Amino acid sequence: MGEKYWIGIDLGGTNVRMGLFNDLGVIVDEKRWLTEADKGPDYVIQKLIDAISSIKKDYLIQAIGIGLPGSLNSQEGIVLSCTNLPKWINIPLARIISDSLQTPCFIENDCNVAALAEATMGAGKGYDIVYYITVSTGVGGGLCINGEIISGATGNAGEIANIIVGESKIRHSYLNSGSLESMASGLAILRAAKEKGLNVKYAHEVFILASQGDKDALDVTESALDFLARGMAAIAHVVDPHIFILGGGVAVSVPGFTSNIREKYEKYVYEMMRGKVKIELAKLKEPGIIGAMHMAKKQQEAKAKKKKE
Amino acid sequence: MGEKYWIGIDLGGTNVRMGLFNDLGVIVDEKRWLTEADKGPDYVIQKLIDAISSIKKDYLIQAIGIGLPGSLNSQEGIVLSCTNLPKWINIPLARIISDSLQTPCFIENDCNVAALAEATMGAGKGYDIVYYITVSTGVGGGLCINGEIISGATGNAGEIANIIVGESKIRHSYLNSGSLESMASGLAILRAAKEKGLNVKYAHEVFILASQGDKDALDVTESALDFLARGMAAIAHVVDPHIFILGGGVAVSVPGFTSNIREKYEKYVYEMMRGKVKIELAKLKEPGIIGAMHMAKKQQEAKAKKKKE
Repeated sequence: MGEKYWIGIDLGGTNVRMGLFNDLGVIVDEKRWLTEADKGPDYVIQKLIDAISSIKKDYLIQAIGIGLPGSLNSQEGIVLSCTNLPKWINIPLARIISDSLQTPCFIENDCNVAALAEATMGAGKGYDIVYYITVSTGVGGGLCINGEIISGATGNAGEIANIIVGESKIRHSYLNSGSLESMASGLAILRAAKEKGLNVKYAHEVFILASQGDKDALDVTESALDFLARGMAAIAHVVDPHIFILGGGVAVSVPGFTSNIREKYEKYVYEMMRGKVKIELAKLKEPGIIGAMHMAKKQQEAKAKKKKE
Repeated sequence: MGEKYWIGIDLGGTNVRMGLFNDLGVIVDEKRWLTEADKGPDYVIQKLIDAISSIKKDYLIQAIGIGLPGSLNSQEGIVLSCTNLPKWINIPLARIISDSLQTPCFIENDCNVAALAEATMGAGKGYDIVYYITVSTGVGGGLCINGEIISGATGNAGEIANIIVGESKIRHSYLNSGSLESMASGLAILRAAKEKGLNVKYAHEVFILASQGDKDALDVTESALDFLARGMAAIAHVVDPHIFILGGGVAVSVPGFTSNIREKYEKYVYEMMRGKVKIELAKLKEPGIIGAMHMAKKQQEAKAKKKKE
């Protein structure tokens, strides 16, 4: 006892990952289990509390950070809604956990948390303005400036899926028509490939076919990358990051993804911006738990500082 | 003597405005003169130096801040290029002024400076994330977070003119096809109105015709506002500001501009973001000189603090 420890949790729709970190940010223990989201929030939260409790016996936990996919009020610690966690509507998750365990708990959107992890310990280390983009089934993002997550007024900074990047006749229930997610996500790539009659199961297979010279597959991937580049150009004109970090299944599994994107991106920004921004792949294997830990640490330290003043 | 004073300058293509401020930010003297940009940078800069010199005799000037339209390296104090100031290519303006007058000088893009002014003393006072947008002949923007200008990696944060908001067949020399400026600026409104055969000289006249029931004028203004709303939605998904502040000739001269924009904006953001962002008109008459002064003060104080450490 005596040494300070921190917990970072990545609460996903399928798996929960939990990391125990010492005060230097080194991971000393890790656990993972199935979320079993279908059993509802009470069940998922109780399992979280049990897992933290069993660690808390042996370590002096300073704070718990949880990253999860969805719309949050991170200041109040409330989960507003969550695509992959059904029935998570207006759940005061941070308060439930902190009350139950008598330990401060902070929550944040999982993309923001990943952005913080990459900005602090990954590809974005040393850069002032870091924009993290994940391209997997969907598209997400997160912004860090000087090592701080920018959540925004309503917690929606980084919700780049909904940026309009083109015209489309397809209507969506909650996304803009022609939005980045509907034009450039793994799901969008897969849908476009199937429309062209390609026999594929995963988005990265479309990129493999394209690299083998399949004209239809190439049309699909080039179009998706072009729309992604438009989205990145929009971000650049809004906040002009020093580095874009690309993560997510599609980005990291496709060879040459960043150089292909760069070529397209440069067309859509002012001449004087060309060749200047860094575009790198995400470096960390577990940005979720690392970022959640860093977020909790920052929040707790800010709270302590404020109390002192 | 003894009391501290600061100078803020708004260096435009047509006019130069200069304000002398005391340490409380109150303006104590103001001058304005024609830029005479056609006489070249040496001439314009010498007139600037002469004007500051004549004030410097009587006041203890701490620093000089200059806001100007164009692409800058604000950290190095270099004007890279300037649309309204011909021949201003790679001019180390801050160094020239500070060497000549033995007084620290800082430069910044005029939209960023206006954003800082509104964030500090105008409509954005008290809000963490402020996005300032000017709609006049062109479209520009500036971002302030916690009272600091975010210039970005290449000084292009806020250069929202180039964000793609729609499809267009018109090609531009330096802007994206379908960019915000080409779809929603005063010039774009005027061009579209003339294409429809409307007899107008200024963009705001198109709004007047629209309010009088002219169907063609209404088509033009509704389309421009819709594209502006798309641009604002893109900004919201990237950085989620607490407030949008709308300035510039078109925005401030058209009755009901903000409520019309809000209605369109809400369609393009996630449901949970609707009704939450503030959209207000700019409040300050001279954001250029006020913002330039605040910028210089902040830069000088940060420099002094760094030296101390």
